[in-house]
Amino acid sequence: MNSMSKPATDTAGMIERVRASFERQGMMLHLGARLLRVEPGLCELALPYSDKVTQQQGGFHGGAIGALADIAGGYAALTVCPEGSEVTTVEYKINFLNAFQGGELRAIGRVVKAGRRVIVTTAEVLHYGDGQRRDCAIMQQTLAPVTKTY
Amino acid sequence: MNSMSKPATDTAGMIERVRASFERQGMMLHLGARLLRVEPGLCELALPYSDKVTQQQGGFHGGAIGALADIAGGYAALTVCPEGSEVTTVEYKINFLNAFQGGELRAIGRVVKAGRRVIVTTAEVLHYGDGQRRDCAIMQQTLAPVTKTY
Amino acid sequence: MNSMSKPATDTAGMIERVRASFERQGMMLHLGARLLRVEPGLCELALPYSDKVTQQQGGFHGGAIGALADIAGGYAALTVCPEGSEVTTVEYKINFLNAFQGGELRAIGRVVKAGRRVIVTTAEVLHYGDGQRRDCAIMQQTLAPVTKTY
Amino acid sequence: MNSMSKPATDTAGMIERVRASFERQGMMLHLGARLLRVEPGLCELALPYSDKVTQQQGGFHGGAIGALADIAGGYAALTVCPEGSEVTTVEYKINFLNAFQGGELRAIGRVVKAGRRVIVTTAEVLHYGDGQRRDCAIMQQTLAPVTKTY
Repeated sequence: MNSMSKPATDTAGMIERVRASFERQGMMLHLGARLLRVEPGLCELALPYSDKVTQQQGGFHGGAIGALADIAGGYAALTVCPEGSEVTTVEYKINFLNAFQGGELRAIGRVVKAGRRVIVTTAEVLHYGDGQRRDCAIMQQTLAPVTKTY
Repeated sequence: MNSMSKPATDTAGMIERVRASFERQGMMLHLGARLLRVEPGLCELALPYSDKVTQQQGGFHGGAIGALADIAGGYAALTVCPEGSEVTTVEYKINFLNAFQGGELRAIGRVVKAGRRVIVTTAEVLHYGDGQRRDCAIMQQTLAPVTKTY
Repeated sequence: MNSMSKPATDTAGMIERVRASFERQGMMLHLGARLLRVEPGLCELALPYSDKVTQQQGGFHGGAIGALADIAGGYAALTVCPEGSEVTTVEYKINFLNAFQGGELRAIGRVVKAGRRVIVTTAEVLHYGDGQRRDCAIMQQTLAPVTKTY
Repeated sequence: MNSMSKPATDTAGMIERVRASFERQGMMLHLGARLLRVEPGLCELALPYSDKVTQQQGGFHGGAIGALADIAGGYAALTVCPEGSEVTTVEYKINFLNAFQGGELRAIGRVVKAGRRVIVTTAEVLHYGDGQRRDCAIMQQTLAPVTKTY
């Protein structure tokens, strides 16, 4: 992971690039997601419960959980790419562990391999509520670095 | 797929159950998704382009594509379950094939195996726009039938 | 899929390249797999039942089924790559549908998207035995073209 | 994970059940795999390099890596099931991180969720060689407990 061994002076710029990209995500802003933490090889997001993210039984929608995990992994990947890059999700696979209503979800994405052509990440989604933290989902994802076009 | 060989008289009730469940999905209604087609072992949904479903480059968000595929597969699975059931997504895996802006997405979910404990489906997501139909994503999914609790 | 629209005169060479690569696969030869069919964007393999491919209950081993699907998808991908290429499996996901003992497995890999950097395939694994053909597994796979190094 | 909180007196029996099942796996014995470690919720296997496990470029075959990961996850799952159970793999997804020739692979499977109907595991596959330990693959898997039939 060469990109991760760059001098720390790059870190502020990298965090800024992630933040700028996140704020362009219409869907995430619309659903109420927030960027909590960005570090080299890691990104953490939060998604509070609301009627915008529910399925038919009133719990968090699998689609919202999947989107949150996808983006946490994607921005973790972006932190290990050179400036001027974006990443595109090639594919992901997610297992849902437990269903939750209320509270807040947090997804932590981590880079497992930062290749030149393919980046592999994992994400865990946790639920915070009633003073407890519990497992919600785990994801495994493949991304490709692409040149930024905006 | 025993459930699929039931008399056709069940089909109207089955379509009604899918529709009733779909209309309880806060997230899907919020994003503007519509139920297009329900048949034994199949479900088709549509999602028009809007600023509620975009990522940072203005294209359809992978999270929206994933949610649409997940639900198309899920309701295809529900059509082969006995009355009084819901289905829960155990896991899914999605490959993104092409990115699109504008137009409309359609996801078609199909039951591949209708087991008593595990249902396997696939979904294809297509993009309709500029008079063309093009591949957007493919998904492979595992679900479990559960007793309806609402 | 530009590579697939090449003149038919390339087809014989492409089939030969797949065959030459397959015959270098120590594991597949060892397990008794055979190459049945190679066409642009498609590859079919067979694996007969033997005590080299069993799990603890005497059925075909999931590992053997996964390997067969992986390779069928991989060679389908190779058919759409330019000469001098190999492909490397980035990842795959497989659902096991039914277990079988005896007879023969056949895996058919098909190219879904032939990108310059990423190739997406699916494979279905079928069981032939007792005069019947039945579903065994389905796979979804991502590969990357690489330069041949041998 | 109720099964994991059983008294330690069960552990010896559990390890014995895993070992007895492993020794019935024709394919694994044939390829030269060994059972290294069994603990509640964990299983570690080793697979030495040989011409039985190679692909066309002489490296470890993806099919062998996938099989090893599948089984490590499967036996990790078996450790959390009641006596008289077997587990069946519903599906798995594996990312290949680096290719290796020579040395030995080790796969460590871990239970992430031990449900009554569905067990979720992850596995990491590492390569040991030249005095180094390096990442080879990561897997995410779904299994179902079934009644033992032999």
